[in-house]
Amino acid sequence: MNEKFSDDIYGRARVQDTPELEAYYKELEGLGAGALWTVANDIEPWEPKSKSTPMLWKYESLRHLVLKSSELVTPEQAGRRVVYLVNDNRKDVSAAVGWLYTGIQVTRPGEFTSAHRHKASALRFIMEGEGGYTVVDGNKIMLEVNDFVITPNSTWHEHGVDANGKTCIWQDGLDIPLVNALEANDYAVLEGTQELVAPINYSPMTYGGTGLIPPDKEWNKPYSPLFKYSWKVVYPALLEAEKVNEPNPLDGIIMKYTNPMNGDHVMQTMGASIQLLPKGFKGKAHKHTGSFVYQCAKGKGYSIINGKRFDWKERDIFCVPSWAWHEHHNLSETEDACLFSFNDLPVIEKLGLYQERFFKENNGHQIIE
Amino acid sequence: MNEKFSDDIYGRARVQDTPELEAYYKELEGLGAGALWTVANDIEPWEPKSKSTPMLWKYESLRHLVLKSSELVTPEQAGRRVVYLVNDNRKDVSAAVGWLYTGIQVTRPGEFTSAHRHKASALRFIMEGEGGYTVVDGNKIMLEVNDFVITPNSTWHEHGVDANGKTCIWQDGLDIPLVNALEANDYAVLEGTQELVAPINYSPMTYGGTGLIPPDKEWNKPYSPLFKYSWKVVYPALLEAEKVNEPNPLDGIIMKYTNPMNGDHVMQTMGASIQLLPKGFKGKAHKHTGSFVYQCAKGKGYSIINGKRFDWKERDIFCVPSWAWHEHHNLSETEDACLFSFNDLPVIEKLGLYQERFFKENNGHQIIE
Amino acid sequence: MNEKFSDDIYGRARVQDTPELEAYYKELEGLGAGALWTVANDIEPWEPKSKSTPMLWKYESLRHLVLKSSELVTPEQAGRRVVYLVNDNRKDVSAAVGWLYTGIQVTRPGEFTSAHRHKASALRFIMEGEGGYTVVDGNKIMLEVNDFVITPNSTWHEHGVDANGKTCIWQDGLDIPLVNALEANDYAVLEGTQELVAPINYSPMTYGGTGLIPPDKEWNKPYSPLFKYSWKVVYPALLEAEKVNEPNPLDGIIMKYTNPMNGDHVMQTMGASIQLLPKGFKGKAHKHTGSFVYQCAKGKGYSIINGKRFDWKERDIFCVPSWAWHEHHNLSETEDACLFSFNDLPVIEKLGLYQERFFKENNGHQIIE
Amino acid sequence: MNEKFSDDIYGRARVQDTPELEAYYKELEGLGAGALWTVANDIEPWEPKSKSTPMLWKYESLRHLVLKSSELVTPEQAGRRVVYLVNDNRKDVSAAVGWLYTGIQVTRPGEFTSAHRHKASALRFIMEGEGGYTVVDGNKIMLEVNDFVITPNSTWHEHGVDANGKTCIWQDGLDIPLVNALEANDYAVLEGTQELVAPINYSPMTYGGTGLIPPDKEWNKPYSPLFKYSWKVVYPALLEAEKVNEPNPLDGIIMKYTNPMNGDHVMQTMGASIQLLPKGFKGKAHKHTGSFVYQCAKGKGYSIINGKRFDWKERDIFCVPSWAWHEHHNLSETEDACLFSFNDLPVIEKLGLYQERFFKENNGHQIIE
Repeated sequence: MNEKFSDDIYGRARVQDTPELEAYYKELEGLGAGALWTVANDIEPWEPKSKSTPMLWKYESLRHLVLKSSELVTPEQAGRRVVYLVNDNRKDVSAAVGWLYTGIQVTRPGEFTSAHRHKASALRFIMEGEGGYTVVDGNKIMLEVNDFVITPNSTWHEHGVDANGKTCIWQDGLDIPLVNALEANDYAVLEGTQELVAPINYSPMTYGGTGLIPPDKEWNKPYSPLFKYSWKVVYPALLEAEKVNEPNPLDGIIMKYTNPMNGDHVMQTMGASIQLLPKGFKGKAHKHTGSFVYQCAKGKGYSIINGKRFDWKERDIFCVPSWAWHEHHNLSETEDACLFSFNDLPVIEKLGLYQERFFKENNGHQIIE
Repeated sequence: MNEKFSDDIYGRARVQDTPELEAYYKELEGLGAGALWTVANDIEPWEPKSKSTPMLWKYESLRHLVLKSSELVTPEQAGRRVVYLVNDNRKDVSAAVGWLYTGIQVTRPGEFTSAHRHKASALRFIMEGEGGYTVVDGNKIMLEVNDFVITPNSTWHEHGVDANGKTCIWQDGLDIPLVNALEANDYAVLEGTQELVAPINYSPMTYGGTGLIPPDKEWNKPYSPLFKYSWKVVYPALLEAEKVNEPNPLDGIIMKYTNPMNGDHVMQTMGASIQLLPKGFKGKAHKHTGSFVYQCAKGKGYSIINGKRFDWKERDIFCVPSWAWHEHHNLSETEDACLFSFNDLPVIEKLGLYQERFFKENNGHQIIE
Repeated sequence: MNEKFSDDIYGRARVQDTPELEAYYKELEGLGAGALWTVANDIEPWEPKSKSTPMLWKYESLRHLVLKSSELVTPEQAGRRVVYLVNDNRKDVSAAVGWLYTGIQVTRPGEFTSAHRHKASALRFIMEGEGGYTVVDGNKIMLEVNDFVITPNSTWHEHGVDANGKTCIWQDGLDIPLVNALEANDYAVLEGTQELVAPINYSPMTYGGTGLIPPDKEWNKPYSPLFKYSWKVVYPALLEAEKVNEPNPLDGIIMKYTNPMNGDHVMQTMGASIQLLPKGFKGKAHKHTGSFVYQCAKGKGYSIINGKRFDWKERDIFCVPSWAWHEHHNLSETEDACLFSFNDLPVIEKLGLYQERFFKENNGHQIIE
Repeated sequence: MNEKFSDDIYGRARVQDTPELEAYYKELEGLGAGALWTVANDIEPWEPKSKSTPMLWKYESLRHLVLKSSELVTPEQAGRRVVYLVNDNRKDVSAAVGWLYTGIQVTRPGEFTSAHRHKASALRFIMEGEGGYTVVDGNKIMLEVNDFVITPNSTWHEHGVDANGKTCIWQDGLDIPLVNALEANDYAVLEGTQELVAPINYSPMTYGGTGLIPPDKEWNKPYSPLFKYSWKVVYPALLEAEKVNEPNPLDGIIMKYTNPMNGDHVMQTMGASIQLLPKGFKGKAHKHTGSFVYQCAKGKGYSIINGKRFDWKERDIFCVPSWAWHEHHNLSETEDACLFSFNDLPVIEKLGLYQERFFKENNGHQIIE
């Protein structure tokens, strides 16, 4: 706590304990009450504070353990066979950062889970494999590496890999900790798998045209009807944008995945973005409210988070807590790097809690500790 | 007027003239007034009524006249060198149908107009040529055949063809008659042409990714930031959708051009759609409020409008008035046909005036008169 | 047309007729086409233009004629017994100004109309009488002088006066001319009167609490659930606001009647306001798009419209066309004056066509011609 | 946990520990990871679960302690002199229920606090006294018993009692625990008090007209411009509504305090309601997501929460946790009772997490344990 934020000023609690006050506090406690000034400075911090610590999970360390899970337990036993990544300071809520959960799931060819649903929302970013699929409310979506797929709040969903595919590994992102904290989560299982209600890939083939929406179909759900954002169209879009835009000093060329029906985040509680760091890009630092989980989708580089350097390459996962200074650097002078990320910005924004600050010293770059 | 809609019932005006009433009417007239019952049945029709008549404009008849205009007048003299298409019953307001204006504009290589702007909104659909462009608020957009481009309310805009291009012909669509009727139009000219504020094709290259929006750019205009919808991505999107959707019985495979920021119509007063009629498609009839101008973008077929058949092929233009029965047929058993259309649906919808009726007799098909 | 708006400049049509061109025009005409440059300057005016002329209707001249209508025709014959006020330049569309209709309706004690509905929206402002009522979709609303009541698009409605009431006169406002022009109007009659679905005055008694909405009732209609805005609460609200606000230089103390569910205009196509001109108030002039019909609800004063003075007192009705300069003056130094008005602003605003200009010369006041 | 929710079914985690697995878990732990199936059933509950317990705080027990605080500490020392009410199971976050904080604040005549602001939102409900006031962003609002006043996210605010007033006691409600949990809170103090920017009571006197909004004032803040909802108009509105509405079986006559600009909750993160339980009213039970804090504003009765009876009378405060069965009863056969409540429904609703269940047995009434 620096001097800028001293509690020894008018407007902050500055009461000294006395025997009389202690007796008073005890009396209040007996009635389910307390004196605000005994906790006020704690619960009214000067600036946003995160409980999470920045962390990086190296894929090369985790991959064999993820694969090993498929030898140790069956999907029938495990529900879903997932290694989850947990923040050192958020083990109590099983969160990777803030109120966001993330995990790495493996599915062998021919395996599939039973269908379930919950108030928590989920998303997936494909890391490896062929022939993987997700079924969302009866819509089967085929998945390829770097595809981004959503299974929103209360949709039935299940996952699998075609028998003639290759072992698939993907990253799961959920807001389970948040929805639990808000005391609103639920869970239901379906016996077996869903019946398909539409041809395979119906959703991306119907809603995948830029700026084109079928006016004869009703869509009144509070999330995107486009369940999959394919890398094979997303990456070219980044390259096109790069040709006509100066890279944003903080984020390079960045695109928010959006609901084409309203331009909003893809789901009500979690957003996601993809960003391209041009060759040699050295991003400047800022901090803002909202928690983020990143996966490197392409290339290699490093991020400096609250003064600490985290080196990443393809498939590594790391997190940026709320109000942590962060900046991203591409280590290559010849190739671009791409970062996928998901976040709780829909929550932060809808509740009016977003704020941002730019790092002004040292030309915008943090000093590495 | 059939019996269903007799005015000889309670609730309609049924007053007979008498000398006393005639004196009364005269007295009212002198005070800038009248008796409602003398006009009530006229101004309160039982069903929506359009003043327009269905019409078809054959491109093969008009093309040489359009080209000839470029010999008769210069852009400097004419402002814009356009042959406009006018409904037989709407000559007083220079409208093709309802309150919509349409015209065919020709521009020779190296020609360009000066920039202007107006409260009326405009759109273009490219019919022929190479190297054509539109500049919208400083953004130069290159145009190819079947591209759809917008120049919304109050944007500065100008058009031209690169010196090494080929003569371009495009259809203009504007709501000039509507904005004049609403007594809100204006006009301003810029001396010369606009300075470019962004690289060529900045808009479609930045906003052209499906479900991708750059979160670091502000956009608070009431129209689409995507100024061009390219045929080279629109037509494949129609083909993809066709693979996984049953054709809509009325419209085949239909897509509304939308603003990716909010899923709404591309502009505040005019909407547009593209539809693919599969080979052998025989659309059923309906009628609804709202006026439509169509251009055949591909193939050949016919539409039956209020019982009259209109045969069209690529580049032909026709109109469907408000509340006119209409159905579309593809005449080919081997190739699809595509219809571009624009309309005043944003007006009709926002004002709560949309209604639709389906043609139930004869399996949904009108009897041609 | 002043020099500022000369058509003899680049960007406007300046083509001279020649025999060759005349032949060309004739050829185009035969094909349902024309040369844009022959009409361009007409259909693209430099500034908004209204066809309407400012007019004032004195109640003392009209009142006896309105009452006389009740001797000349029965409600059964007339449908509704209304004297409508028509603009000298809008007789073709039966409009008082722009696309707005207004009329004065009389109902004797014990009389009532049958129920009907239409796509046009309607509103009423009560001028005289006791025991009047309107039934809106089965909700009976009792009306007193200066109450404002709405019967939105497609609601069933009927009017009457209780047998023990006093002859009622009210002003009707409708957008019939607009909805006809947009080719979307319809009409239906109910045999007899509606059955009531709720206690008398259910709507204002349920939705009349400031900032209070019953969360257990569903309301998904596109208009206000508050059907009546009672003078007995509206006028005190104006007085309260006057105590803590400087009068707006243009409009004094002005309040928009709004839909409490969303703060929007009361209906989709017509808005309404009430304004209090403090004693001695001398409003400044401005002009804007949108057409307005005013009724003086209290006091006396005058308005200057496009340089012409119109003196009004309680119950007089006058109109301000689109883009006409106008300013309002209270003639009393001891009492406030109140003006009710209704308008087509919802249309103008939703379509992006609003613009405003302030009169800057002469300290904001027009010179009376 | 009843049988309905057994974890021994397909789709839930059912893995038995083995030495091999335990070694595996240890390896994961070293990498900041874990096996999802070891926590899955815990973090994916079958139904919403609240950590809070229902509680009632009797005013007669607390009042003298609240008053005593004004002898023990000065506002200068305490910041604000508040006794806060804390849930037995939420002491770690200083919450009364869920993520909502509440407290009782006392201010003596002539006392006032300094101004401060924070990202957390706050509201107040006046319990006792005369001459109290709140200043919200320079707007001074006078407060009377049962008035409801808001000080939204990031507004400067301060409180006081006029020197010639009477000691005031009010309930504070804040979302401090929520905004802290979302890692987004901040705090700033102003030296001294705010300068007033408008006449006293400007906000309620300008925005207090039912369905009336001043169209000439800009308001683009994400909360209600009506800072005070006066009991002197709120209670009559409840009585009016009671005359024409059957009481809701759950809630009697209930009104949500709303933002008149958009009909939404008064603030972005907290909502509030007032409800009248008619004489003899016996409410039925339901449960839903969202946390609620109640204060009895009038009369006496009891609520049954999760099978336990809590008797309350004027000024008592109690809470209903998320997903707790609850029903409200008026104990008087001759007088109505009124309950004020505030909640986190804006959060629950915007994030798509609302669900509700009705108690169907025993004619809708819980059996008291």
